[in-house]
Amino acid sequence: MSKSKSKSKIAICGYGNLGKGIEKEICKSKDMELVGIFTRREPSSLKVNSSTPVISINEIDAWKDKVDVMIMCGGSATDLPEQVPAVAKEFNTVDSFDTHAKIPEYFEKVNESAKSNNKTSVISGGWDPGMFSLMRLYANSILSNGSTYTFWGKGVSQGHSDAIRRIKGVKNAIQYTIPIEEAMNKVRNGEKPNLSTGEKHLRECFVVAEEWADKNSIENEIKTMPNYFIDYNTEVHFISEEELKKNHSTMPHGGFVIHSGETGDGNKQIIEYSLKLDSNPEFTASVLIALARATYRMNQKGEYGAKTIFDIPPAYLSEKSAEELRKEIL
Amino acid sequence: MSKSKSKSKIAICGYGNLGKGIEKEICKSKDMELVGIFTRREPSSLKVNSSTPVISINEIDAWKDKVDVMIMCGGSATDLPEQVPAVAKEFNTVDSFDTHAKIPEYFEKVNESAKSNNKTSVISGGWDPGMFSLMRLYANSILSNGSTYTFWGKGVSQGHSDAIRRIKGVKNAIQYTIPIEEAMNKVRNGEKPNLSTGEKHLRECFVVAEEWADKNSIENEIKTMPNYFIDYNTEVHFISEEELKKNHSTMPHGGFVIHSGETGDGNKQIIEYSLKLDSNPEFTASVLIALARATYRMNQKGEYGAKTIFDIPPAYLSEKSAEELRKEIL
Repeated sequence: MSKSKSKSKIAICGYGNLGKGIEKEICKSKDMELVGIFTRREPSSLKVNSSTPVISINEIDAWKDKVDVMIMCGGSATDLPEQVPAVAKEFNTVDSFDTHAKIPEYFEKVNESAKSNNKTSVISGGWDPGMFSLMRLYANSILSNGSTYTFWGKGVSQGHSDAIRRIKGVKNAIQYTIPIEEAMNKVRNGEKPNLSTGEKHLRECFVVAEEWADKNSIENEIKTMPNYFIDYNTEVHFISEEELKKNHSTMPHGGFVIHSGETGDGNKQIIEYSLKLDSNPEFTASVLIALARATYRMNQKGEYGAKTIFDIPPAYLSEKSAEELRKEIL
Repeated sequence: MSKSKSKSKIAICGYGNLGKGIEKEICKSKDMELVGIFTRREPSSLKVNSSTPVISINEIDAWKDKVDVMIMCGGSATDLPEQVPAVAKEFNTVDSFDTHAKIPEYFEKVNESAKSNNKTSVISGGWDPGMFSLMRLYANSILSNGSTYTFWGKGVSQGHSDAIRRIKGVKNAIQYTIPIEEAMNKVRNGEKPNLSTGEKHLRECFVVAEEWADKNSIENEIKTMPNYFIDYNTEVHFISEEELKKNHSTMPHGGFVIHSGETGDGNKQIIEYSLKLDSNPEFTASVLIALARATYRMNQKGEYGAKTIFDIPPAYLSEKSAEELRKEIL
């Protein structure tokens, strides 16, 4: 691909944090260009950060010969399950569907649409699912006698932040998931502990309360909230709206996949992968862009249907040729 | 493959540390069995640790229909460049050829043999080249605006240990390559420093001297040895033969691949992969076994010729089916 002069044509469907990240990052690829931003909103109402045409999602059919890969940037709860099976009939797609429990069902639906129309759809890209999944797969394939631990953070959990915001008397809030260092070190030492999610992570909350609100009761309501907080060690800090804006407006995230394996007569073999991300949406965008390159290549080779990162030869993600990769990176 | 009852038939060619590691680890796979150990030595002289038949390499042709994948366990200096292009004409092969600079030439030779005989040969497996190469590729494909740093150790360097042993007055010696924590932390902080190999690693030597030898002169000879030591911060400790046997007879190794990338307006994105291995040969063996599984699958699908880990869909390395992987690991 690096030898070809023509760039592959990428479009975005959905213009939230992820779509904006892709718009910003795609210019770093020498082999791809952004040709359109599709939206459910009135196109003229959308202020975008580039000169890319903004098009109503209702006009998407007219673009089927002008787009090589459509990167689907909607949410996993309702957007992607509805949009991707429809769009995959006319476009190669990439998405970041991340509701782990529903992946098998989602895969089948997308596969049906894509396969019968000779399209290729890579689902569930990003970092988890995505790069972290890959690390779990490689580690388990190499050291089958072992245990894999995934730790998330330090990073903002949108779901937990939203849950706090719904409490009466809370004006604004942000929640950080923080991996517990002591638990990580046990795993790194090859101890193979049994750890619940609550034993692996603590939850730190920064809350802006309404003036009239009772802070003790908010703190208590957070700490005892079922599913979200009750099983965790939770810290609550009350801060001002200005402090929240000043110190908590970026979207860092990250995490660790640690595999503790054993070979021979008790030899410990530890594999660790970690991400420390200043911007979660920009990193996810970067993964999806590399996957878009791979999606296009798979489609060119006649590999149709739904795929995951597990099905993609790693070389397909790179701008470099196979020869360059063997020479420079192997 | 997990559904099939018949196991694929693996053989080893070469019975050193790596071959012994494969013999020990392959029983952990439910889908492969070891059917033969090929050797250049007189077979009856070889004491192996299992009931696997030992066969002279001169008899290898007679086994071409009885072996699905031959794991080549010779050295990169002279064994593999000679053996693999010959064996790849009649067997699917996997090897750990690790002379980075000669990989392109080696690839071409093996490719020619394998391709024209409908065989599949995966070259340069292990951890570097191998898993570390993969991590460099993924990181560069995702964050092309970035720099990748590879650190090795703490671990035994066989080449450096041998170089010390050749000094007059040295009875025995072992050399550890140790990554410099301070340099790693600079990279982890996103500083993107320019680092020579000597600025990334220090060399610690444990030396058993002959009684009559002049230790000062040995130490000086080590520290000023061209290529091996002169560009490094080198520490030399003199110890007894018993101490060497007691404290330095295992083969630990490991290392780090750290990619420091940037997205958006100066957002730092750090990817880190590390291995902490009690046994270097047993880990390498574990990687080659997973690659043997993938090699067989690629051959079944008609993907002939020389391949590297860059060409292998990750799912091919796993015992689990695609459905299981999507459900359990994605």
